[in-house]
Amino acid sequence: MKNLLIAQSGGPTAAINATLVGAMQAATTSEYVDTVYGAVNGIQGIIEERFLNLSESLLNTVQLRILAQTPAAALGSCRFKLDSVEENEGQYEQIISIFRKYEIRYFVYIGGNDSMDTVNKINQYCVKKGINDIFVMGAPKTIDNDLVETDHCPGFGSAAKYIATTVAELERDISVYQTSGVTIVEIMGRNAGWLTGAAALPRLNGNKGPDFVYLCEVPFDLDQFLIDVKKKLDETGSVFIAVSEGIHNKDGQYISELLQSKTEDVFGHKYIAGAGKNLEELVREKFGCKARSIELNLMQRCAGHITSATDISESKLLGMKAVQSAVEGKTGEMTTIVRNSSNPYDIYFSTVPVARVANKEKKVPLEWISKEKNNVEQPLLEYLEPLIQGECNITYENGMPVHLVLYNRNEQK
Amino acid sequence: MKNLLIAQSGGPTAAINATLVGAMQAATTSEYVDTVYGAVNGIQGIIEERFLNLSESLLNTVQLRILAQTPAAALGSCRFKLDSVEENEGQYEQIISIFRKYEIRYFVYIGGNDSMDTVNKINQYCVKKGINDIFVMGAPKTIDNDLVETDHCPGFGSAAKYIATTVAELERDISVYQTSGVTIVEIMGRNAGWLTGAAALPRLNGNKGPDFVYLCEVPFDLDQFLIDVKKKLDETGSVFIAVSEGIHNKDGQYISELLQSKTEDVFGHKYIAGAGKNLEELVREKFGCKARSIELNLMQRCAGHITSATDISESKLLGMKAVQSAVEGKTGEMTTIVRNSSNPYDIYFSTVPVARVANKEKKVPLEWISKEKNNVEQPLLEYLEPLIQGECNITYENGMPVHLVLYNRNEQK
Repeated sequence: MKNLLIAQSGGPTAAINATLVGAMQAATTSEYVDTVYGAVNGIQGIIEERFLNLSESLLNTVQLRILAQTPAAALGSCRFKLDSVEENEGQYEQIISIFRKYEIRYFVYIGGNDSMDTVNKINQYCVKKGINDIFVMGAPKTIDNDLVETDHCPGFGSAAKYIATTVAELERDISVYQTSGVTIVEIMGRNAGWLTGAAALPRLNGNKGPDFVYLCEVPFDLDQFLIDVKKKLDETGSVFIAVSEGIHNKDGQYISELLQSKTEDVFGHKYIAGAGKNLEELVREKFGCKARSIELNLMQRCAGHITSATDISESKLLGMKAVQSAVEGKTGEMTTIVRNSSNPYDIYFSTVPVARVANKEKKVPLEWISKEKNNVEQPLLEYLEPLIQGECNITYENGMPVHLVLYNRNEQK
Repeated sequence: MKNLLIAQSGGPTAAINATLVGAMQAATTSEYVDTVYGAVNGIQGIIEERFLNLSESLLNTVQLRILAQTPAAALGSCRFKLDSVEENEGQYEQIISIFRKYEIRYFVYIGGNDSMDTVNKINQYCVKKGINDIFVMGAPKTIDNDLVETDHCPGFGSAAKYIATTVAELERDISVYQTSGVTIVEIMGRNAGWLTGAAALPRLNGNKGPDFVYLCEVPFDLDQFLIDVKKKLDETGSVFIAVSEGIHNKDGQYISELLQSKTEDVFGHKYIAGAGKNLEELVREKFGCKARSIELNLMQRCAGHITSATDISESKLLGMKAVQSAVEGKTGEMTTIVRNSSNPYDIYFSTVPVARVANKEKKVPLEWISKEKNNVEQPLLEYLEPLIQGECNITYENGMPVHLVLYNRNEQK
């Protein structure tokens, strides 16, 4: 038997199940794959042998279509990091013996940075031990868009589309009164500002978009921020701002920590609030104006009802390619997207050794950020534009998108 | 000339422009209406004579379709409350003289509670002065669904659909790890819990939905809340909670105020956070577990990309009926929806004197809330279900929904 094992890891996205579906489809149509297993909760579920037989449970194309529109990892995720081969060879022996037990010839791990590290380590162990009949492939996934060696990451386009749409809607909302004070939208991204950059996309449709966009790639200067805000506030009575959650000062200290270190309750407990909330309080304190912060929170990574058709399609194809590559004998690689041009949008799919991807981060190029460090430049919008194109024809039931649930975590052992 | 004046007021919704479109369409197809004017920023814009000629600027059905999918009042809104006729008769003389200047015979005001108070007062003044050639109609609008005399309110169904969809997506998101701690979703509603009730709608699709749903109609008992949460946390390691922003204790004190009165920064500034954030901090402090709160914030009232087709259609029809009623000689009334049955969904449109609507609030019936005060009952879901049915075919451009902007607030005088 030549079986395929698929697992998912890292933070949820709205496209990670499309990659699972792509992998399933490539397996179903290949003569070199027998049973497809899914491990529940990533590498942790492999070690604990918590497997689902996906060949049995996913029988028809309607189910696969619903799975592809279901946000967040249907196979669950984990926060588990493998020890190095040197530290803990036993862990790898255990994984391989489980692979042998289930006759796993191909393993596809869908995830981000840490997951690629896992793929890399399992592959290194196989090389070291001369195991040449197990093929390990990574399929990328992260709303943060911070994986190197791929033009962009599955899940990012859908998150960017949600953010662009929501920011455009918020702009309408805060425009109804004659003045609206200061509105701050906080967007995910500790180290990379790709998602925050997407807040400027409404400009492509003639909207104004945020007055200021602060990415975490450049130091955030609190004094300059207050000057920026005050000037705009005096001019129009309304300021609309987008910030990365990870904005930090020139010493590398997060703005959220910097500001709220001053704040605790009478019991001495520190309040935990994000950059947006902290800047809101600061602006209200300094200028006495109406101020509001909005955290796009988990919605930006799980809004399956407004995914990018481009993203969902590419996510599927990267899952397919991961299986195909494994079947063709590749191992220790990650599938990637290479962009030839943005306009017209022209890409192709490739693979790259995971060792070149693991534990690295791709950030927004500094030349795509304004000199004043308070906005983004046109090339960023040109890069982003194709990634949010197209709408998915979502299946609804009772007025809500239908989701496919592969397991119930409270029943699953 | 028999001209029509339309204005919008109160908080934004995703359906308020559909009502504007309905009113426009009824005017366009009526032989009794000449020019249609829109006042910018509600009654305040009327007093300041800030009028748009909508007959000139909204020329075709494509524009009207885009306007109907644009969230938030396209004519702007205001926070302006008219003095009583007794207090300030001059204000009413001014309004009527502006009506005369523009030959306004029909006035349709789209809004909530306060707006109906405005309609009522203008009508009372007309009655008092024997003015019988000006016809003043209200068209309802509020995501809070708290207007009396109508089964439900335009804008509510779309907000409920957004909330139901988002809660279902969040349930997927927080299910990916083996345990997820406590997740609290805070939903709009100071006095009425209709929107929070919508968080339970995913149950109709076989989802679990929130473990607990706390509406502001019943007193919130902090001790009982902690017992509820602890029990569930011990059982499964994960608790999913929906709360109204307006939950309060038996003495009527808001939970947000009750908890954060303890918290201030070193300058003595009080932190302003909502019920969800405060409960998050409390849970983390008491149980030392992972806790997260999510505020659906402005998104729940302006998510034009996921409106209810039922809501948008009804909103248009209520705008049409407001114009028709005025033309037929009605005045001082609000258009309403009367429900004959939920299954099958059967409604008709009617009108009611605004005096019976102004300054009143409709709350969720207590028998639709569980005896334990921590959940909702089936009849609430049966009431809500038809209101979120159907999806609108939204027009996108560059991957984002297209919006129609009627005026730019910084250029408009």
